[in-house]
Formats: sequence, structure tokens, C-alpha cells
Amino acid sequence: MERRSLFITFEGPEGAGKSTQIKLLKEYLESLGKTVLITREPGGTPLAEDFRNIVKHYQGEEPLYPATELLLFEAARAQHTRYVIAPALAAGTIVLCDRFADSTEAYQGAGRSLDMDFLQQLNNFAMAECKPDLTLLFDLPVEVGMERARARAAHIVDHNDRLEAEKIEFHYRVRDSFLAIARREPQRVKVLDATMSIEELFAAVKVLVDNALS
Amino acid sequence: MERRSLFITFEGPEGAGKSTQIKLLKEYLESLGKTVLITREPGGTPLAEDFRNIVKHYQGEEPLYPATELLLFEAARAQHTRYVIAPALAAGTIVLCDRFADSTEAYQGAGRSLDMDFLQQLNNFAMAECKPDLTLLFDLPVEVGMERARARAAHIVDHNDRLEAEKIEFHYRVRDSFLAIARREPQRVKVLDATMSIEELFAAVKVLVDNALS
Repeated sequence: MERRSLFITFEGPEGAGKSTQIKLLKEYLESLGKTVLITREPGGTPLAEDFRNIVKHYQGEEPLYPATELLLFEAARAQHTRYVIAPALAAGTIVLCDRFADSTEAYQGAGRSLDMDFLQQLNNFAMAECKPDLTLLFDLPVEVGMERARARAAHIVDHNDRLEAEKIEFHYRVRDSFLAIARREPQRVKVLDATMSIEELFAAVKVLVDNALS
Repeated sequence: MERRSLFITFEGPEGAGKSTQIKLLKEYLESLGKTVLITREPGGTPLAEDFRNIVKHYQGEEPLYPATELLLFEAARAQHTRYVIAPALAAGTIVLCDRFADSTEAYQGAGRSLDMDFLQQLNNFAMAECKPDLTLLFDLPVEVGMERARARAAHIVDHNDRLEAEKIEFHYRVRDSFLAIARREPQRVKVLDATMSIEELFAAVKVLVDNALS
């Protein structure tokens, strides 16, 4: 019997082609007669987008601490899963989410002295019943990702070598963290080689999604 | 040797006289030459007050879920402890905080199907190194507390008996939860009978604080 609803999350670094693949997948699923919702994290509801904006654009005098940032992201996730994702899934919609709980583990967890068991419990609390059925991890060597990001933002010149080196270290930890999640949950998380062309990558996505639907 | 800094939290229901005792204690400690900071939760920093206001005054169409509320309170706590409480304690100040982590356990935990171990971990993550040295729990029979609250808000007429009954049930669970914390951590949490007069109550507070200072 074919499944109706499905919760698919898209993970991986900037520049890995997630948005393009999400759009292609939506078109494909709609051509099969499915109802599809595209959403994203952090954000996805008006209130959750407010929390996202506090983290991304806060300009006050008071520093925004990493612990506060993490808890705000989780508050946004609690809101997003309950208000948007759970009702959509209950209505038989296929939900495609650009980043989800694995990004929190990879970005907020990587390189900080966070208790990873606690972080997973926090993620589970925030997402409640909305666990992804399938996670597509768009994996990219750090240098390729940074090169693509640089090409996108060619007007931003960064002459600070120390900061640049720290950034590279950080992205290595993020990639390792994503791959560790895939090793831990191989049934849910499928690793895709994001150096492939858009067409090759989408062919791989299609196989995995067809499989999840059947 | 006398301690310089001290972190004292005030817990208990509305109407138990916490604010009055905080003011009296501040005067007393200042008369001893101490530097004292009064603060409160949720809130205590401009950003944390913003999170408090979202929870208390949010009027949007989107419901604010209990899980989101809890995570916002914890985000506020993470901010408050790092920006206000930790630096004050490091400077040798005595910090008096109107409500803290125990209120989260009592109010957000009571009567909801929350994993209490997780809630304690979440509290510990948010408060980090800022654990209270002393917690004064102003205990009041539920009926007395509700009578005092009614007297304060005599203009608010509530004809809904079912809601009123639910409220009473809730306040019983909150009181039980506070008392359970006191049994679990008798060294830190001291239970005071808040039916006493202001003067009797303050005499008891003074003994406990003098003891914590010596």
C-alpha cells in the first residue's frame, strides 16, 4: 500500500544544492498527484520566524549567548512542528523541510562543549511526534562547500586569515557531525554526494523518495 | 570566613508575600554593608523580558504551545543567568531573585506529561553555573493563596465553576511540586510558613540568610 503523508528533511552545508532539489522534488511529487508542503527551519511559522530573526538579526547591546540561541531555535522547532508540520502530515501532505533537528546537532553541537545526549533529548522534546521519515544529507567536501559559498558572495572580501581558518575548522566539525548522524541512523538518513550534477543528484533523490513512498 | 556573594531565590505561589520579603531582606543586607541586586524571572534582562512578554501577552492567531512556552522561559533563563546573575555574583553581589528554576518545575511541570528528569536537565543547562545557594519557599495552603489572589483582583469575576475547579487542582499540583523539590534538596530549599505575619516571616528569613552568610 502506498503511503500518503511523508516527512522528508534536507540537510547539509550551504551551497550543497538543497533548495534546488527541494523544488525539483516538489514538482515531481505533484506530477504524481501528491500534495506537497515546502517549509524550512529555523522558522516556518510567523512566531518561529520571529525567533529566527532574533537569533539572526539581533543588534542589541546585550550579547545573545549560544545557550539562548539554541533554546530559541528549539522553541521555534516546537512551534513549527505543532502548528505546521503535524497538521500537514495528519492531512496526508508530503512535507519537505529545508533543515531540521540534525542541523541543530551539527551546527549548535559541533565544537561546543554540549552534552550530545541532552541535545538529542532537547530535539526530541521540540519535535515531539514529528520525526522525519527520511532525511537526505547532501554531503560536500568542506573546501567545495566554502568555494561555492565564496562564489555566491564574491563581493564579501574576508582578509582575516585567522577567522577564515577557524571557519574551516568549524565546517569540518559540522560535516563530521552530519556524517556521524547518518552512521547512527542509517535507516532514516541517506547520504548523497552533492558534488554530482543537479540531474544526477535528483535521480538519486527520486530513487530514495520512491522507495520511501512504496 | 564570611561569604561575599550569595544567590538566593524566592519561590512559592502568588500572594505568599515574596516581594515584601525581598524588599525587607535587601534593606537588611544593605544595612550590613552588602551590595544587593534584586531581579526576577521570567525576565531580568531586556531580551529575557522580551521573551517573557511573548509568553504573557502574545495575541497572535497562532497558538503558543506549552512546549514553546517552556523553551522560551528557558531561553530567558539562559540569558538572565549569563548576562546578569553570573557577573553580579562574580563581583561579590548578593542576588535576590523572585522566582527561578523551581517555578518552572512547579508550574510548567505540574500536571503536564513532561519527563521531569528532562526538565531538570533543561533547567541545569539554562542556569549553567548559577545554582542558587539558598531557596526560600514561601508555602501557603492552596485555599489561602487563592483567597489572597482573589482579594488582590476583586474586580475580576469568574463565574466559570469548571475553570475555577481546574485552577484549584492545578494549584494543588504546583504546591505539591514545590514541596517535593524541598524534600529532594533540603540543604538548599527551606520551607517557610507564609501564613505567618510579615514580621514573623522576616524573622525566619533573617535566620536562614544569616546562616547562609556565615
